[in-house]
Amino acid sequence: MQRKMRMGMVGGGQGAFIGAVHRMAAALDGHIELVCGAFSSDPERSKASGADLFLPADRVYSNYEEMIQKEKELPEGERMDFISIVTPNHVHFGPAKMALENGFAVVCDKPLCFSMEEALELEQLVTKTGLLFALTHNYTGYPMVKQARMMIRNGELGKLRKIVVEYPQGWLSTKAEDTNYKQAEWRTDPARSGIAGAMGDIGTHAENLAEYITGLKIKEMCADLSTFVEGRRLDDDGNVLLRFEQGAKGILHASQISTGEENDLNIRVYGEKAGLAWRQMEPNSLVVTWLDKPKEILRTGFTSNLYPEAIAHTRVPGGHPEGYIEAFANIYRNFAICLRARLAGKTPDLIHQDFPTVQDGVRGMQFVNRVVESSATEQKWLAF
Amino acid sequence: MQRKMRMGMVGGGQGAFIGAVHRMAAALDGHIELVCGAFSSDPERSKASGADLFLPADRVYSNYEEMIQKEKELPEGERMDFISIVTPNHVHFGPAKMALENGFAVVCDKPLCFSMEEALELEQLVTKTGLLFALTHNYTGYPMVKQARMMIRNGELGKLRKIVVEYPQGWLSTKAEDTNYKQAEWRTDPARSGIAGAMGDIGTHAENLAEYITGLKIKEMCADLSTFVEGRRLDDDGNVLLRFEQGAKGILHASQISTGEENDLNIRVYGEKAGLAWRQMEPNSLVVTWLDKPKEILRTGFTSNLYPEAIAHTRVPGGHPEGYIEAFANIYRNFAICLRARLAGKTPDLIHQDFPTVQDGVRGMQFVNRVVESSATEQKWLAF
Amino acid sequence: MQRKMRMGMVGGGQGAFIGAVHRMAAALDGHIELVCGAFSSDPERSKASGADLFLPADRVYSNYEEMIQKEKELPEGERMDFISIVTPNHVHFGPAKMALENGFAVVCDKPLCFSMEEALELEQLVTKTGLLFALTHNYTGYPMVKQARMMIRNGELGKLRKIVVEYPQGWLSTKAEDTNYKQAEWRTDPARSGIAGAMGDIGTHAENLAEYITGLKIKEMCADLSTFVEGRRLDDDGNVLLRFEQGAKGILHASQISTGEENDLNIRVYGEKAGLAWRQMEPNSLVVTWLDKPKEILRTGFTSNLYPEAIAHTRVPGGHPEGYIEAFANIYRNFAICLRARLAGKTPDLIHQDFPTVQDGVRGMQFVNRVVESSATEQKWLAF
Amino acid sequence: MQRKMRMGMVGGGQGAFIGAVHRMAAALDGHIELVCGAFSSDPERSKASGADLFLPADRVYSNYEEMIQKEKELPEGERMDFISIVTPNHVHFGPAKMALENGFAVVCDKPLCFSMEEALELEQLVTKTGLLFALTHNYTGYPMVKQARMMIRNGELGKLRKIVVEYPQGWLSTKAEDTNYKQAEWRTDPARSGIAGAMGDIGTHAENLAEYITGLKIKEMCADLSTFVEGRRLDDDGNVLLRFEQGAKGILHASQISTGEENDLNIRVYGEKAGLAWRQMEPNSLVVTWLDKPKEILRTGFTSNLYPEAIAHTRVPGGHPEGYIEAFANIYRNFAICLRARLAGKTPDLIHQDFPTVQDGVRGMQFVNRVVESSATEQKWLAF
Repeated sequence: MQRKMRMGMVGGGQGAFIGAVHRMAAALDGHIELVCGAFSSDPERSKASGADLFLPADRVYSNYEEMIQKEKELPEGERMDFISIVTPNHVHFGPAKMALENGFAVVCDKPLCFSMEEALELEQLVTKTGLLFALTHNYTGYPMVKQARMMIRNGELGKLRKIVVEYPQGWLSTKAEDTNYKQAEWRTDPARSGIAGAMGDIGTHAENLAEYITGLKIKEMCADLSTFVEGRRLDDDGNVLLRFEQGAKGILHASQISTGEENDLNIRVYGEKAGLAWRQMEPNSLVVTWLDKPKEILRTGFTSNLYPEAIAHTRVPGGHPEGYIEAFANIYRNFAICLRARLAGKTPDLIHQDFPTVQDGVRGMQFVNRVVESSATEQKWLAF
Repeated sequence: MQRKMRMGMVGGGQGAFIGAVHRMAAALDGHIELVCGAFSSDPERSKASGADLFLPADRVYSNYEEMIQKEKELPEGERMDFISIVTPNHVHFGPAKMALENGFAVVCDKPLCFSMEEALELEQLVTKTGLLFALTHNYTGYPMVKQARMMIRNGELGKLRKIVVEYPQGWLSTKAEDTNYKQAEWRTDPARSGIAGAMGDIGTHAENLAEYITGLKIKEMCADLSTFVEGRRLDDDGNVLLRFEQGAKGILHASQISTGEENDLNIRVYGEKAGLAWRQMEPNSLVVTWLDKPKEILRTGFTSNLYPEAIAHTRVPGGHPEGYIEAFANIYRNFAICLRARLAGKTPDLIHQDFPTVQDGVRGMQFVNRVVESSATEQKWLAF
Repeated sequence: MQRKMRMGMVGGGQGAFIGAVHRMAAALDGHIELVCGAFSSDPERSKASGADLFLPADRVYSNYEEMIQKEKELPEGERMDFISIVTPNHVHFGPAKMALENGFAVVCDKPLCFSMEEALELEQLVTKTGLLFALTHNYTGYPMVKQARMMIRNGELGKLRKIVVEYPQGWLSTKAEDTNYKQAEWRTDPARSGIAGAMGDIGTHAENLAEYITGLKIKEMCADLSTFVEGRRLDDDGNVLLRFEQGAKGILHASQISTGEENDLNIRVYGEKAGLAWRQMEPNSLVVTWLDKPKEILRTGFTSNLYPEAIAHTRVPGGHPEGYIEAFANIYRNFAICLRARLAGKTPDLIHQDFPTVQDGVRGMQFVNRVVESSATEQKWLAF
Repeated sequence: MQRKMRMGMVGGGQGAFIGAVHRMAAALDGHIELVCGAFSSDPERSKASGADLFLPADRVYSNYEEMIQKEKELPEGERMDFISIVTPNHVHFGPAKMALENGFAVVCDKPLCFSMEEALELEQLVTKTGLLFALTHNYTGYPMVKQARMMIRNGELGKLRKIVVEYPQGWLSTKAEDTNYKQAEWRTDPARSGIAGAMGDIGTHAENLAEYITGLKIKEMCADLSTFVEGRRLDDDGNVLLRFEQGAKGILHASQISTGEENDLNIRVYGEKAGLAWRQMEPNSLVVTWLDKPKEILRTGFTSNLYPEAIAHTRVPGGHPEGYIEAFANIYRNFAICLRARLAGKTPDLIHQDFPTVQDGVRGMQFVNRVVESSATEQKWLAF
């Protein structure tokens, strides 16, 4: 029987940013309903948050342990199908592990967790349980990212040579973590964020995007991380030289002190036959530059020029801009479609089997580890 | 008691475009749930559409009359609170009227209806019943449109002089209505669309946007409508000179034969002290040009530079693009907040009492009438 | 024998704007040398200006009459070949007439002159003398304007339907003519500028550009001119509906009170098969939008994608921006090439026989007359 | 007495690219006249080139040695004042040295010469002779580059943290040097270009631009150069991590295989208080991003918002684009003004004492050496 997938949320209480994004992304396409949540480690706040979301009081829990236990006891027609983890990094592992061990699928915010050890344990648990696990590297949800990937996969760019991926932000240009700004606080706190700051928070997005689009793995790196804001405890900027498989070279840089920059994730890929450029802040365009033909601007919604993979992840006609939430929702929709298929014992359409997994998460954690290590050593190249 | 507002939909079955947009817009913020629908005049199709949307079969109706009747009979805790009308123009009036007469609030796609007579009757009915009525001139839902409006209202531009509003599209450059393309068919059919083609479909958006942003009413117009595609029965392009209140002059042009254009609604407003420019296709920017200061780009999410009206209609931080669906959702969210307040006997926050109403619809119908009349006469200026 | 063409300048003394532009444009390609001038109606100022330009004192004259007379008496190997007139509108006719009557070719700034009578007399004189006469509608000198024209001429856009040409500036948003600002003074003075302000100064550029690119003549117009700045004596803004030959419709608007706008001349042309857009402020790009293919950005310097007419008017490779002075220089270079050929009794290359002539000037004067007339009448359409 | 400065050119015969640019740049402002040249190592070609340029036959020489000797023998009122060297890299040193030794000032294309030894010898010779020497790192001639520099110098950005300078081109994406393409041939030939390809040709521009704008010297670098096109003998791409004085970090990458890129030199600089971005391909804009204020677009010609240094290097009002040739001409004009002042025993205005010198050239040669060395070693950081 066809029904919406039922989501329980961990984190995302009043005042949180990313929790609300996850809820909008989950709700957008009508495939998922939020049925319960443990929205805060503070039970009162969790309750109030649940009320804001029009949830019945008995499905709002004081902590994730309680949620998982109680939901498990509910009848199948009622209990949640999966949990969505939207807490800071250091509270990913706990709920993810417990959910998997109790038979619940998982959507988890990135980075995967706090340490490499946790990451590997989660990977094993996913393999062992066979449960679905999605990691919200949401930027790969954009249709033009999928178009770029398909163009490369189909050889339209020829052999790849150079990849430049950037992620400049400016919101940590001052010591925002001292101003009662929660988003800044935990992201700059090694106890909650892990060994990296900007590199974990956004560098992993850049790494994931580059590998997703190009289909090439990073083989070696040479990093120079910095902490520019005095007294900050983690990196707030990093520049990395990259070497990919098959001889491609690259640059990755990510920053949270690029004053005045918003959220300018962007990538350029150059092959023997063409180049392409994509910017998250104008996500509905893909610029393609050819050896001899005029520069082209591919646009979402113009179906005659796009791969099915791009078309399937767009909702409205050309010229009606889709953005961050829609891309995020593509992750959720694909996850929900795959989950529903699995519950029905079916195989989902290949085009929807497309969301970041626990393996992407492990790779991201490894990236964080290696980039920090590389920055600290005098050795030029470090294997990924 | 706080709960989601319950929506019943008229139209928007499989294959429709705008119905899906309304559903996403309604779902996005978690204020509304779709509880029932009459999705097609074909009962089988309505059923199948309802199933796709995970609705129980007994809440999927064969037509809007049945829906309104049956829902009315349901207990208050269960029945829909309002209907959303997403049918072609000629099927707006019927369900809107019946809904209002039966105590249901209404959200209606634009233009308001088919003729001026219908429009005035609806306006009277809304006044008489005192029910909420929203018209989805969705482009006024964009935060930067609200920012522009507030800047003008607060005199930042000085006395206004010139307004240029454009709405070029190219999707009807060929005779698409002969190719089994439903969107093209009804929009070019006088029996379903009314006396205007492009001017009704998108010209009204331009008119509404210009008046919303500037706070000035159009007083006179001089129009030149064209039908460029041979055999087409309604205008597919129109150029209009405008005269506004308080001496401002303007130009409005709308087109569906501007080959290769997507959906490039845009407006420029020039006052004595500054000018501003906004483009729907890059909606998160507002360009402000000053007499002596450097050109500024205001951006959604940068709260220190924006009016509360703009901030309240944004969901994510700067650099995370919001688009068409989010702007559309702002109409629905404001409507839902006002509806919930009204049901609770409360007055909603002023900032959320901001969505297009039946009066905007009447004005749009008048615009269509006048622009068609002006184009046909040799008299230069026609009063609005 | 091959030599540089020798130019004498009328106007353009210290503090003038357009005179310096003409000199740079003439000098750029090494085809022309400035040999003499009557730079100001004030003899002292003319002298000082000539010294700044490193001219020998005996070739700096007190007025154009003296210059034409004295130069005529010089031996052929020494005397000027043509004069360049860079004075305000009301001092175009005198030197142009005298030059033609004395056998000198003429380059004249636009608009052609002060009144229709003068214009027609100059046209006759050019015909009668057979001398070369160039009018500096410099914007048609841009290579991408030539590319656009050739694409249309070769049918790449199909039958044309709609033309939108805009020329917004903001530099007269305040009463600059009262602030000792010479450029503003004469342009807003009917005694020096003629019957039109913005329409004569920049509206004629827009008209000329539209007709040059499309190859279509304007047949009818309906204008609404305004004077927004209190106390100003000529129009500072104008909106015009256009009807072209062959059924194309259009809009032209020009403004000098569009606060904060710089010099944003731009044009969009839509045909049955494609559309194109060009902006003077980013002149090295031509945007082409197709029915079914991706949007293309044609760029100067990419010779494999361009017509010879565009290539011949570019100096540097793609990505090395050329601008206003280079476009202006294209007029001068073509004029010089044609003049040298004529002096040598040869026929110049067709590609260089491309500069605006006295006929363009007559048409511009007629445009000014008609647009002023149209604005004053209640008749909707006026024949061009 | 005031007169034009007299230029003799070495190289730049028929078919050459950069020679024509130098001539236009020198001619544009009327400060310089071309009086003689040795345009090619092929005497016939030199003659023909001189004739094209309308030079008298006796001032067209067979080689630079002849030119320098013969010109030296001419009377002071007639002989050239300086030479302009526009040959490939390996023919810079010879004419520069001989010119200096014979009392002529020099303008030389970049990079300075072929090897570090040559560079140091030239530097000594300039010091010894006290003659003027300009190196055409033309991109520093743009007014908005000067604006950026002044903003940083005046502390508007605060302490600098991060610098990203890019120079992507795509014209060597295929083996163009095998297709009879002269520009490609010598640039990829170690015997004519030196030890570096892309890094010498354009990497030095990027290095020079970054140091000019920021006022900071590069202290350390870590480079990864590549040769992507099979059979090519020099690098065609390079990625470099940088460390500047005062703790700023940076990235420099330059490429001639970035398929479809034109000439996209660009730089972003981030300080504690603001960031700025400049792109050569849209050179009249400077984007400034502030901590709390809206993003600003500074534009050439808007004098109330700009430093005198920017204003002095602009020729036309805002919105009239100036480009590559004008920026190049700024180098020549400043050089000519300084040379004239020196000949007259005066001190030129500080604002015009602004062009790249032999010291910039030495630094560029050192950059090339170090970047090649760095790429070849396993040591992470190399001192500049």
